[in-house]
Amino acid sequence: MSDDDIQELRSRFAREAMRLMERRGEEVTRTKLAAELGVARARLDAVFPEEGDLLEAVTGEWFAPKLAVMDEVMASGLPPRRKMYEFFARRFLLLRQNYRDDPATFNLYVEMGERYFEYARSYIDLADHYLCELIAEAQAEGYLQGLEVDTALSLINQMVNCYLQPYMIAMIDERLSEEKLALIVGAIFDGLNAKDGGAGGTQDIRAA
Amino acid sequence: MSDDDIQELRSRFAREAMRLMERRGEEVTRTKLAAELGVARARLDAVFPEEGDLLEAVTGEWFAPKLAVMDEVMASGLPPRRKMYEFFARRFLLLRQNYRDDPATFNLYVEMGERYFEYARSYIDLADHYLCELIAEAQAEGYLQGLEVDTALSLINQMVNCYLQPYMIAMIDERLSEEKLALIVGAIFDGLNAKDGGAGGTQDIRAA
Repeated sequence: MSDDDIQELRSRFAREAMRLMERRGEEVTRTKLAAELGVARARLDAVFPEEGDLLEAVTGEWFAPKLAVMDEVMASGLPPRRKMYEFFARRFLLLRQNYRDDPATFNLYVEMGERYFEYARSYIDLADHYLCELIAEAQAEGYLQGLEVDTALSLINQMVNCYLQPYMIAMIDERLSEEKLALIVGAIFDGLNAKDGGAGGTQDIRAA
Repeated sequence: MSDDDIQELRSRFAREAMRLMERRGEEVTRTKLAAELGVARARLDAVFPEEGDLLEAVTGEWFAPKLAVMDEVMASGLPPRRKMYEFFARRFLLLRQNYRDDPATFNLYVEMGERYFEYARSYIDLADHYLCELIAEAQAEGYLQGLEVDTALSLINQMVNCYLQPYMIAMIDERLSEEKLALIVGAIFDGLNAKDGGAGGTQDIRAA
């Protein structure tokens, strides 16, 4: 088989594996998948030499639509504030749709994401890389003053965490909305910088 | 037994139950606790008529120090921005200490908190009630303009979620810091209001 053939088979088997997980509500293995598809185990092993290769391919399929919307937003000519909002909002809407379509399977993916975090790592790193670009664009227009890019990255990820973290989406779904996310992005642009304006300070509150 | 006696026994047995959970790494029941303490099951049943009463008492003991720091902050005469920061920071430091002292037991409490959410409800409601007071104080000084109190409550809880949600503290411990929390509180005061400043808008990013 050519590399392209293998790539296509990986993707096709991964999608079959996801359908199997949705139906059974449990994690998939090469053995279960071979039985389900009625293909020889040796055929699956040729495409996924290790069990982890199947999990990696499933992770890739799961992230593919989220990557596509991020790519689309990054390629847009939107001003920084709108762009950052769309960057988070579109991923949030996809995740929420995944959750609402099938909460049980969504939770299964959340658990698998925790257990096999290494496979999700490169997608999260790419999202962080894009966010660093957005931060640089915002700083070029005078926002996020005085913050190191890494610090801004961490702060922004924390402030919008409820809209990106699948666990939180499953937990507080009905309290999340695009309108609220837009107000949080507004606060990031209008209020986040290297000064806390006096929020921190002495730890002895009795001194007040 | 008088009501005070029962209250004291509830609290004492709940603390014993917590020590047992720490040691065994598993959820406690009245049966296990009676065996562990070498007391008659009837004695425990007199104090905890239902299994849920034991879980409720454990929840109360777990939240007690967090309530104490919230009470202390609310009683302080700090200005709104400092007060809101301390309100979150002190709870965060307690939670982080709980986590770092014993990650396994912390995760056990997180799981129990998800499973028996009804017992935690009143503590979370009280924290929200306090936060509403803080929001009113901030609005009296011109911050958080134009936001309904309930909307501000939801937005602020989302923005500082990583510092309050035990699951998040366990997951990204090393990326959380008091300095970052102070900057987020700064963004809440300087940038959060009823206008998103153009973050939202048309959904068609190609129009840009």
